[in-house]
Amino acid sequence: MSDITPEDFEKIRNGTRTSFRFVENTGIDLLEYGRGLARLMMPLEGNINHVGMMYAGALFTLAEIPGGTLFGSAFDTKRFYPIVGELSIRYKKPAMGDAFVTARLSDDEIEQITADLEEKGRAKYVLDLEITDADGDVLATTSGTYFGLSF
Amino acid sequence: MSDITPEDFEKIRNGTRTSFRFVENTGIDLLEYGRGLARLMMPLEGNINHVGMMYAGALFTLAEIPGGTLFGSAFDTKRFYPIVGELSIRYKKPAMGDAFVTARLSDDEIEQITADLEEKGRAKYVLDLEITDADGDVLATTSGTYFGLSF
Repeated sequence: MSDITPEDFEKIRNGTRTSFRFVENTGIDLLEYGRGLARLMMPLEGNINHVGMMYAGALFTLAEIPGGTLFGSAFDTKRFYPIVGELSIRYKKPAMGDAFVTARLSDDEIEQITADLEEKGRAKYVLDLEITDADGDVLATTSGTYFGLSF
Repeated sequence: MSDITPEDFEKIRNGTRTSFRFVENTGIDLLEYGRGLARLMMPLEGNINHVGMMYAGALFTLAEIPGGTLFGSAFDTKRFYPIVGELSIRYKKPAMGDAFVTARLSDDEIEQITADLEEKGRAKYVLDLEITDADGDVLATTSGTYFGLSF
């Protein structure tokens, strides 16, 4: 879990789950959180599509949200905010249960993004992720490009 | 509108809006429909993100759904169903209002997909779309690869 209290975690978890209505409707949950680390879960329940598997858009959301969660874990969200520039998702296997993702920013990446935000007021970062099922089988792979911008 | 009655359109529109919960929660709507044609709208209301624009995942959903709508417009959905294989979305401009997309399959594409479904029981099709605002300004561009499969 790293460097935050259980109370802080619950606060951040709640913020992630209810940050806005679209996200809240999906039932997404934050499982682990620390500086440069976010693990999230998308429940199958409520996100089933026309053929009985998790809808593509719910998996997209599970891949997209960590870009913001990680941003909040490492940068000054009073001065800067994250926004997604592009995202590609490749579906590998039908999601017949809950789906999981672990996203990380390395110390080097955090240092570079911090420097860019401070010097230029903007920064770019890329997250390549694997979405897995509970057994660790890959359901989808994604590549997202995000920007940190000044308010 | 082409080749369907107003009653049929309302039935298909209702089916599109309420096909499963994730989609219903977004408030997506079908504006035009015909063989090889689908125009859809995603409302800003209910889909606003942490910085006051339409959430990336709502725009993704607006781009993804037409692949299924078009499939239903041209192929035998009692025998075959569509599924998305991959989708890339590039965000061009913040969506500060409702968003729109028009998706088409040409007669040639319909003929080829029909032949592949009948002969191989599966077919692949690609949709490259532009999502626009009410003024026609491009909010996002997308490329999606879909498969038609046998039940």
